[in-house]
Amino acid sequence: MQAKGKFITLEGGEGVGKTTNLAVVKACLEAAGKRVLLTREPGGTPIGEKIRSILLDKGNTPLLASAELLLIFAARVQHVEEVIRPAIERGEWVLSDRFTDASYAYQGGGRGIDSARIAYLETWLLDNLQPDFTLLLDTSPAIGKCRAGLRAELDRFEIEELAFFERVRQGYLQRAKAMPGRFGVIDAGLPLDQVKYEISEKLTAWLNREVA
Amino acid sequence: MQAKGKFITLEGGEGVGKTTNLAVVKACLEAAGKRVLLTREPGGTPIGEKIRSILLDKGNTPLLASAELLLIFAARVQHVEEVIRPAIERGEWVLSDRFTDASYAYQGGGRGIDSARIAYLETWLLDNLQPDFTLLLDTSPAIGKCRAGLRAELDRFEIEELAFFERVRQGYLQRAKAMPGRFGVIDAGLPLDQVKYEISEKLTAWLNREVA
Repeated sequence: MQAKGKFITLEGGEGVGKTTNLAVVKACLEAAGKRVLLTREPGGTPIGEKIRSILLDKGNTPLLASAELLLIFAARVQHVEEVIRPAIERGEWVLSDRFTDASYAYQGGGRGIDSARIAYLETWLLDNLQPDFTLLLDTSPAIGKCRAGLRAELDRFEIEELAFFERVRQGYLQRAKAMPGRFGVIDAGLPLDQVKYEISEKLTAWLNREVA
Repeated sequence: MQAKGKFITLEGGEGVGKTTNLAVVKACLEAAGKRVLLTREPGGTPIGEKIRSILLDKGNTPLLASAELLLIFAARVQHVEEVIRPAIERGEWVLSDRFTDASYAYQGGGRGIDSARIAYLETWLLDNLQPDFTLLLDTSPAIGKCRAGLRAELDRFEIEELAFFERVRQGYLQRAKAMPGRFGVIDAGLPLDQVKYEISEKLTAWLNREVA
């Protein structure tokens, strides 16, 4: 019988370097002989990508926090059932740019939604599916927002004020503190080479623990 | 101080004649001196209409029942906060083509989602906002589906099989039975003139009770 795959996520606020470092994580996993399926949230399915476009559209600025959370979980349940679970069953390693930790950080910490609401949706809709390992790219919001600001056009999240990103950061750090075995926290304020090195160290240490 | 408005809904399965009879209800209310705001679900706001297009798109056929419910409630919370509550506060009478009863009938009865899940979302997101009065257009699914089938193009709900619409119908009737004071059930299988007459009778009787 084919061994099941694993589920790895990369998390972090705006401008922490997720896109660049996703490739680093993928390369590390492939070097360890894993077949990797790269995906992202919100999105990852045709329906999810349509929902993503509503979520990121600045024209939708009066989108309520609760509606935002529901849209994200609608996309997420499609993502889990259509993509993530089938791939894990096939023995692939799923690497997702964000997952439910982002809801605790953004809609919980950032927007102030009670985390018990998020936990209710997580339990009901995802049957408590959690990543096996999560790399959190952490840096001060001032650095992240500055980097994100270099992009050609900012989305509905990237235009939020600094205090929002500070709450998001604290939301992420609380999750990492509560589940230290699942999280590897990376100082994303370091030079990129150093960040890459830390990612490969933390990932390899976890892989060795998993295999052992 | 300006008197608050009321919230009236029109409900029913496919092909029961909601569009035609919405105009009848509106005319009755205006004849009674009410300022009427006509709206609909899913939709009723710019964001809600974008969500509606995902919900009705047949290209999205593998949309999961739970994702469907979340999308509908995301649109609904926007609708309530942006449109329905402000209008009621201004003294207008809101007449909506569908509201939460439709979720109990379609996603609960039709798709089999536990009604406790729907009640959780209703309590959390809408603070239990309920219509003051609901007209339910009820007829056998065979008649409704036949009428709906005359349309040029069918949406993702209209293409469901008859058994689905029978479950939706039973879902609606259960709601009406549980809350007889709020519901007026209309036999929508009668000729249109008779349906119109029944609507105006039930609506007027309720208005007289409300004013008294």
